[in-house]
Amino acid sequence: MLKLYHHPFCPHSRTVRLALGEYGVQFDCTTEYPWIRRQDFLMLNPAGTIPVLNENDGGPVCGTWVILEYLDETRGYSIPDRRLLPDHPAKRAEVRRLMDWFLYKFHQEVLSYIVHERIYKQEMAPKYGGGQPDSSALRVARINMGHHLQYIGYLAGTRKWLAGDQLSFADLAAAAMLSAADYLGEVPWSRDENTKSWYARVKSRPSFRPLLSDKMLGMPASPTYADLDF
Amino acid sequence: MLKLYHHPFCPHSRTVRLALGEYGVQFDCTTEYPWIRRQDFLMLNPAGTIPVLNENDGGPVCGTWVILEYLDETRGYSIPDRRLLPDHPAKRAEVRRLMDWFLYKFHQEVLSYIVHERIYKQEMAPKYGGGQPDSSALRVARINMGHHLQYIGYLAGTRKWLAGDQLSFADLAAAAMLSAADYLGEVPWSRDENTKSWYARVKSRPSFRPLLSDKMLGMPASPTYADLDF
Repeated sequence: MLKLYHHPFCPHSRTVRLALGEYGVQFDCTTEYPWIRRQDFLMLNPAGTIPVLNENDGGPVCGTWVILEYLDETRGYSIPDRRLLPDHPAKRAEVRRLMDWFLYKFHQEVLSYIVHERIYKQEMAPKYGGGQPDSSALRVARINMGHHLQYIGYLAGTRKWLAGDQLSFADLAAAAMLSAADYLGEVPWSRDENTKSWYARVKSRPSFRPLLSDKMLGMPASPTYADLDF
Repeated sequence: MLKLYHHPFCPHSRTVRLALGEYGVQFDCTTEYPWIRRQDFLMLNPAGTIPVLNENDGGPVCGTWVILEYLDETRGYSIPDRRLLPDHPAKRAEVRRLMDWFLYKFHQEVLSYIVHERIYKQEMAPKYGGGQPDSSALRVARINMGHHLQYIGYLAGTRKWLAGDQLSFADLAAAAMLSAADYLGEVPWSRDENTKSWYARVKSRPSFRPLLSDKMLGMPASPTYADLDF
């Protein structure tokens, strides 16, 4: 059985959960709080970051990009018509460019602030940096969110899926990022109709369902979060 | 002919140059100053980052990781015995874990500061943020460098190459990062003998030669930079 070390609201972990869902793979989840730097977890991944995937007590697979490539190589055969990385190297390069965009750029400029300030800091003990959200960090994130929604809207308006004709890791990464922000009501959906209708398509996939039932203690989801007709 | 948009002292670009050298691929180089945000370059890569590889006027391949995977897929066959990504998925996962470590973590915690403060800021006009290096940023980078050298030394002391028995993208990424710092005399080689002897092996490869002849105007290389018996 595959085991995923994750946090329910870590957008990177969510990307991997969506991919596992698309491949129809069963897996166990363990919530990890990376700021605690648990010794046994550092033995698995010296970087101390989530997500980490462990296969049948084999070697750990550390990091979102690494896990997605690993899943394509070991599970890609199971969904040949809708492989999440296309076959042609140039098309793969386009999917990967957008994986890089969403997993690093979008995360760094928007999600890392939102999730850290509004979720992790509520769960962290003060000695790990927990406390009230920093409103100036959130302000920056919200401005950047506008630019990213515009870019996603441009892609969604000119292509069937974000990287081309097929659903790919790029869609899962972008949707996972947005979903974590959406839980907190941090996505101004009215800004871009193309973004909204693309997201509605991803959100209605069976792989998305487990994410929609995630709950954070003391912080209910925004009214539109689990609504497929938001 | 392949064309690489790069900066001679960008550690990410250097990783790609080493990989192209290992594959024995001819390529043209164009120096790009990403802070200028040149319009034609943004058309190639909307993220505005280097390196970007362009193949025979085909679609651009943007980002270090994306380029390395692309090269493995399109050139890997040319060096079957010493492929830079191994065949087995678990071994690939280990190479990629270290690619992630060096290209993102090592870069973010060390090289981004060193290269930005000591190279890019010398080349930037003041309106782009050019000027004197920030000594507090360099102090952080130098402390972090110590931790990273220790980890590289641990890997080099327990394995033939950093990710296992074969030279891989992980070695190229780590060596490229170190080479940019080494030009500036920012690598305390005496700290770790294993790191030093591993680096000497990478540095003596033919793929490394072009890097050793890079020069920055007004800032000569450290005495050990081009010396194979440093």
